[in-house]
Amino acid sequence: MKYKALVIDVDGTITHMDRKLSLKAAAKLRSIDVPVVIATGNVLCYAKAVAKLVGVCCNIIAENGGVIVDGFDNEPIVSDVIHECEEAYELLADHFDMEKLDSVHRETEIVLRSDFDIEKARELLGSHFPGVEIIDTHFAIHIKSRKINKGTGLIKMAELMGLKTTDFVAIGDSVNDLEMLQEAGFAIAVGNADDFLKDIADYVSTATYGNGTVEAIDHLLSKGMI
Amino acid sequence: MKYKALVIDVDGTITHMDRKLSLKAAAKLRSIDVPVVIATGNVLCYAKAVAKLVGVCCNIIAENGGVIVDGFDNEPIVSDVIHECEEAYELLADHFDMEKLDSVHRETEIVLRSDFDIEKARELLGSHFPGVEIIDTHFAIHIKSRKINKGTGLIKMAELMGLKTTDFVAIGDSVNDLEMLQEAGFAIAVGNADDFLKDIADYVSTATYGNGTVEAIDHLLSKGMI
Repeated sequence: MKYKALVIDVDGTITHMDRKLSLKAAAKLRSIDVPVVIATGNVLCYAKAVAKLVGVCCNIIAENGGVIVDGFDNEPIVSDVIHECEEAYELLADHFDMEKLDSVHRETEIVLRSDFDIEKARELLGSHFPGVEIIDTHFAIHIKSRKINKGTGLIKMAELMGLKTTDFVAIGDSVNDLEMLQEAGFAIAVGNADDFLKDIADYVSTATYGNGTVEAIDHLLSKGMI
Repeated sequence: MKYKALVIDVDGTITHMDRKLSLKAAAKLRSIDVPVVIATGNVLCYAKAVAKLVGVCCNIIAENGGVIVDGFDNEPIVSDVIHECEEAYELLADHFDMEKLDSVHRETEIVLRSDFDIEKARELLGSHFPGVEIIDTHFAIHIKSRKINKGTGLIKMAELMGLKTTDFVAIGDSVNDLEMLQEAGFAIAVGNADDFLKDIADYVSTATYGNGTVEAIDHLLSKGMI
């Protein structure tokens, strides 16, 4: 099977553990011929910088699928889901000491520093806001709508690019990559990925972080899959 | 003379001509022991991504000195100069067909695609808005206050870091780096820099773009200057 595009997470997948860019992963992504879509939980402005600097400009899935853009200067498609997240946050903020991160630029979800009891917060949220979930990407805590994720983002992006989601190889490491890996035609988890992601992946790299992505792309190239 | 810090431009200085990150320059910046300040005409959100990905986090001069921050999560210092730029833009927009870039995130200046007659625009602006200037960084056109530049940004940043501006080595390539190079203790222009920048520099690299920065830092290291 020959795949037509690659969709890839940023933090933990093309970076080191400390979020520095893996220069080897960047070089590898530049070297391949298929279009590369950046898919991140981070905001669009950050994701654009990643795409520009890595040099895979500019099909982007940002905010875990909440914001999609298929060109650096095009108008982004922004999901209308922030209100329920705001309401959920207000309920939680009455009970927990929480710190919002990069809220100026974020349009579809709320991101918090991970220094509160997430399980207790999930319990509290459960009955009041069934449409809202709390996820921990290891880099931050996201309060997000269950309607959007990187999988729904990939569905929209594939449509914009005139492709099927099964034309994509997806690479990720964390809980917010799950639906994207499930939607894609071929799913790759890097060596540092959560076990449940490795369980559903078609290929799991031995190497971790950016080196895992290099290993995975070399595997795809060696098998003629991209 | 031993310098205590490095302040460096992004586009054209640590990137290739197409704004892709120079992986060699990134590796070199990671390898040195002095703090590295990112100084760019781009918005803070973009500059933060550069600092995080390059791994020199997080003393940042953004928007050509209009926005300064000395830590990833600290509150930025934002100069109150946008109003005169807005007024100047409104005058110009009556006479030229202009396209604003990344205006959502920009707080202290106005950036335009470079597809109009800048000299004519400067003439028009001259008598009406003497405090506002139009500069061309080769990547975009900036309508900015004359009160701020990367030099004034460096003065503020040095103070925040408990240093003198002459403790810094500055590296740049373009007109918006001029005042920063003049303020710094040692000024470097990369090989692709504008001639007037090379004229005032203490060192001009033979190599261009990111390779020029690598050459310049190797020079500093070989002379024990950082």
